[in-house]
Amino acid sequence: MTSRVIYRRTWERGYNPHGMDDARTYSITLAYDGAPFAGFARQPGQLTVQGELEQALSTLLRMPVETTCAGRTDTGVHARTQVVSFSASAREMASRNPASFIRSMNALTQDGISVRALDERPEDFSARFSAKMREYRYFIFNREYPPIFTEPFAWHVKRPLDVDAMQEAAAHLIGEHDFKSFCMAASAEGKRTYRYVDEVSFFQCEQFAEPLICIKVRGNAFLHSMVRAMVGTLVAVGRGQRKPSWTEDVLEAKTRSAAGENAPAKGLVLWDVEY
Amino acid sequence: MTSRVIYRRTWERGYNPHGMDDARTYSITLAYDGAPFAGFARQPGQLTVQGELEQALSTLLRMPVETTCAGRTDTGVHARTQVVSFSASAREMASRNPASFIRSMNALTQDGISVRALDERPEDFSARFSAKMREYRYFIFNREYPPIFTEPFAWHVKRPLDVDAMQEAAAHLIGEHDFKSFCMAASAEGKRTYRYVDEVSFFQCEQFAEPLICIKVRGNAFLHSMVRAMVGTLVAVGRGQRKPSWTEDVLEAKTRSAAGENAPAKGLVLWDVEY
Repeated sequence: MTSRVIYRRTWERGYNPHGMDDARTYSITLAYDGAPFAGFARQPGQLTVQGELEQALSTLLRMPVETTCAGRTDTGVHARTQVVSFSASAREMASRNPASFIRSMNALTQDGISVRALDERPEDFSARFSAKMREYRYFIFNREYPPIFTEPFAWHVKRPLDVDAMQEAAAHLIGEHDFKSFCMAASAEGKRTYRYVDEVSFFQCEQFAEPLICIKVRGNAFLHSMVRAMVGTLVAVGRGQRKPSWTEDVLEAKTRSAAGENAPAKGLVLWDVEY
Repeated sequence: MTSRVIYRRTWERGYNPHGMDDARTYSITLAYDGAPFAGFARQPGQLTVQGELEQALSTLLRMPVETTCAGRTDTGVHARTQVVSFSASAREMASRNPASFIRSMNALTQDGISVRALDERPEDFSARFSAKMREYRYFIFNREYPPIFTEPFAWHVKRPLDVDAMQEAAAHLIGEHDFKSFCMAASAEGKRTYRYVDEVSFFQCEQFAEPLICIKVRGNAFLHSMVRAMVGTLVAVGRGQRKPSWTEDVLEAKTRSAAGENAPAKGLVLWDVEY
């Protein structure tokens, strides 16, 4: 769509599209409410988190800035910890202290984005490729009556879920597997769909005194909508529609239609990233 | 405004405006998000919690129903536990089990209301006059960057607050006092403004991993916007604008203009009621 030729991509070592003689790599850490945004990734004519960040960075640094993130969240998915890296001129960055940089970023971006930290990183750092582990949390409000305080950040499942069965089903997903059945079909085309899932654990928590089931999922990397497909599949087991061993069959099938429906975006939070 | 003469008020013993031969007293317990409502109290042409509840109860019970609540919250104030009592025909109530009654109430009321329990009470029970203790909690997000997960339920105060000074200031408010300075002026006219405040305590909590200062206020009863005036006054101390002993002077003055501004409604939650 664009006529500009990008010779090096943003995550490649030494990416410096604007010929800065003092380019360095930085990252910002931020949280956001997914509800108002058409996802993380920049899209023309849409309100996106990346679009907001790049516009604010470009205004602040007085040159076009392109960013790379730890995890591209879909429309409606939230982040407690998202990390975004970019190249910038060290002189330009040094002209502001980090607190005022963060303050300006929050003033220049839409409500629902909260920039919380700025860090200088090694030259070859990439928020995406340097990440060793990503953690997502999925929140379910499992009462017949509706949630109030947790409504924007939890899936309301009215009938009681069998969490023991869900835990048993989740055990099959731990380890290295071909997660093709848990990847949005169009995104899986011709790509390697093996991923390593370190942990799928369940715990009860309370937020503003409302009880939630939290599903914590950690892995090295995730396919498109993989966590939501995993949670949708586990909830089908928790509802008694499928047996716990079903998740093994789903993995075997290697086709998206074998798994459960995606759980709603609003219950999912990109919780943490480790480098 | 209304031409109907109400001979007995809803909280009087034996209130039975519709001549039911089997009137009993019931209560519902509910939570709500204050944001969409013009407060609890019914007002013609406005979306209110009481208006929604009375309309739903009247539809369900096929007769006009009037309600009394534990604490009339202002526009934008939330409730984790609100108790609402009403008279109804025992036969009509017996025709439904409590779970289906609660389900119908949630189906018939606006999003943002969550009815959670139904109880039969002694004949002379009043959600308002039988309450022995009310607890409010006020949440403050005290970081320079904005909150995300707690945004709808917390006041964002950017500069660091001196919580020790606030605690010292709060100590003067504990006990029985004339709280006229903490009551909306129009509501204080010609009324007894003594109240007993049992506890004003501070603790740190985390909701969805965001750190909050929580101010817990317990007392037998509260004047109009009293908790918000107390919190606004304590925050003026926490900001260093006033000394902790200022709260004594404010109590002494017995005029609303002596106290701090009302803290924003959205940080306040009616947390609990004891009978």
